[in-house]
Amino acid sequence: MRVLVMLDGTVVDPGTPVIRVDDLGITRGDGVFETILVVDGKPRELGPHLDRLDRSAAMLQLPPPSRPDWEHCVQAVLDNWRGGAEMALKMIYTRGPEFGDGTPTGYAMGLEIGEKVLRARQTGVAAITLDRGYDPEIVSRAPWLLLGAKSLSYAVNMAATRHAESVGASEVIFIAADGSVLEGPTSSVVLVNGRTLRTTPPSSGILKGTTQGALFRAAERAGWVTKVEPVTLAELREADALFMASSVRKITRVHTLDGTALADTTDLREELNALYESEY
Amino acid sequence: MRVLVMLDGTVVDPGTPVIRVDDLGITRGDGVFETILVVDGKPRELGPHLDRLDRSAAMLQLPPPSRPDWEHCVQAVLDNWRGGAEMALKMIYTRGPEFGDGTPTGYAMGLEIGEKVLRARQTGVAAITLDRGYDPEIVSRAPWLLLGAKSLSYAVNMAATRHAESVGASEVIFIAADGSVLEGPTSSVVLVNGRTLRTTPPSSGILKGTTQGALFRAAERAGWVTKVEPVTLAELREADALFMASSVRKITRVHTLDGTALADTTDLREELNALYESEY
Repeated sequence: MRVLVMLDGTVVDPGTPVIRVDDLGITRGDGVFETILVVDGKPRELGPHLDRLDRSAAMLQLPPPSRPDWEHCVQAVLDNWRGGAEMALKMIYTRGPEFGDGTPTGYAMGLEIGEKVLRARQTGVAAITLDRGYDPEIVSRAPWLLLGAKSLSYAVNMAATRHAESVGASEVIFIAADGSVLEGPTSSVVLVNGRTLRTTPPSSGILKGTTQGALFRAAERAGWVTKVEPVTLAELREADALFMASSVRKITRVHTLDGTALADTTDLREELNALYESEY
Repeated sequence: MRVLVMLDGTVVDPGTPVIRVDDLGITRGDGVFETILVVDGKPRELGPHLDRLDRSAAMLQLPPPSRPDWEHCVQAVLDNWRGGAEMALKMIYTRGPEFGDGTPTGYAMGLEIGEKVLRARQTGVAAITLDRGYDPEIVSRAPWLLLGAKSLSYAVNMAATRHAESVGASEVIFIAADGSVLEGPTSSVVLVNGRTLRTTPPSSGILKGTTQGALFRAAERAGWVTKVEPVTLAELREADALFMASSVRKITRVHTLDGTALADTTDLREELNALYESEY
């Protein structure tokens, strides 16, 4: 089951080609996106996702996304969905055709949750750390590097994931040139130490995690301490437990880091996922 | 005038949407491209461009591009062109639809040379140096960063160019974290000192320039010394003359660097462009 709705509200068969060859989304990776989890017809963290779409679009100097148009578009995907209880809803917003009238291209897709994601939620993932190549000190003074924008230029994220798979892992934790921990290619990193949850700050050039944000809100209410602060590679290795937070994978346990098996934290996984679910 | 030919040889109206919304070229910037100059029906440096397409595709672990298919596709664009004497021929090759049968998407477009390019060739460009954020020492040990691949994930290149335009320039020269000179967002850097031409090496994570390569071949035959070696920012500033080499812009003079007017090197521009043209 797949649903495709264009930003103008038109419902289109998802197999029908609707993108022009000169769309700058394809020729230059010049656009932004979001992926939202929908459960029982309810999109999770829609506001934070739309806020982040706005921020990414601003970083790329795209025309500001129309909030009502996107809300209608998302609703149309929900209305037309005949698949399972869960759906991954992907929003794409590009600079549009190079030889067009300047109108951006926008659409939302409703997709089934893949087998690989369902498996990762249950069994956890083996992660490897990989250099991301930049020093966080550059983030604020080099906005053209688009660090922290969720752009369509994700070839590096995909290549890093392929690299992980080539060495028997399935997840990546990017490390900055100064040795600090960043994020996964499509997820946030969460460390657990006692009753404290930690994640890395957007000022290091990474995305503000929507799922991580929901987890931290719930955890704070349940008496956990939460911290958003720089994390070193040594701290990553020494944490009581590691998780990757992403919209479709929820709070996924890291069972192996750089080839070393981590302590069994299945109970903790259940506790954190229950906290996350309590938000909805 | 625009011409569009798909990799299977089909000639399509370029305004017709032929790309699916789930094409990984658009959703992930997951593909590679080349832009070739065609003059009087003859593509320049077709072999080096196809070689580079192969290298980029290998770095992204795409299926190896079929050389005969691409040659036929390019020939079909040439055969169908009814525009001016010059054409920019763009080749795009993506991982294809995410929910497809694994077949890559490939097509070539024939495009008119834009006014901005024609003006840059004549009057030269004002360039600014911008940090690219990585240290060249990372290139060989972090292949997942795809440094040196001409991928579709060009949002940073486009953002850097917009940044230049926002400060009254039109071209960028990227500088590495160690202060060495890299390349432009869509061109190579060429320094002139006396009768020596210098450019920066692909080992620093940049593209091997096809137009720069043609210029250097011709210059060597004419008695110039050519060097492909690391260049420091200080050496960039102290060069007798600076040029940007790209397929469609040819050998473009940099008349202003970081706001400082450079010496008038119009004669040198003519000499270098004559050398470049002598290759064809």
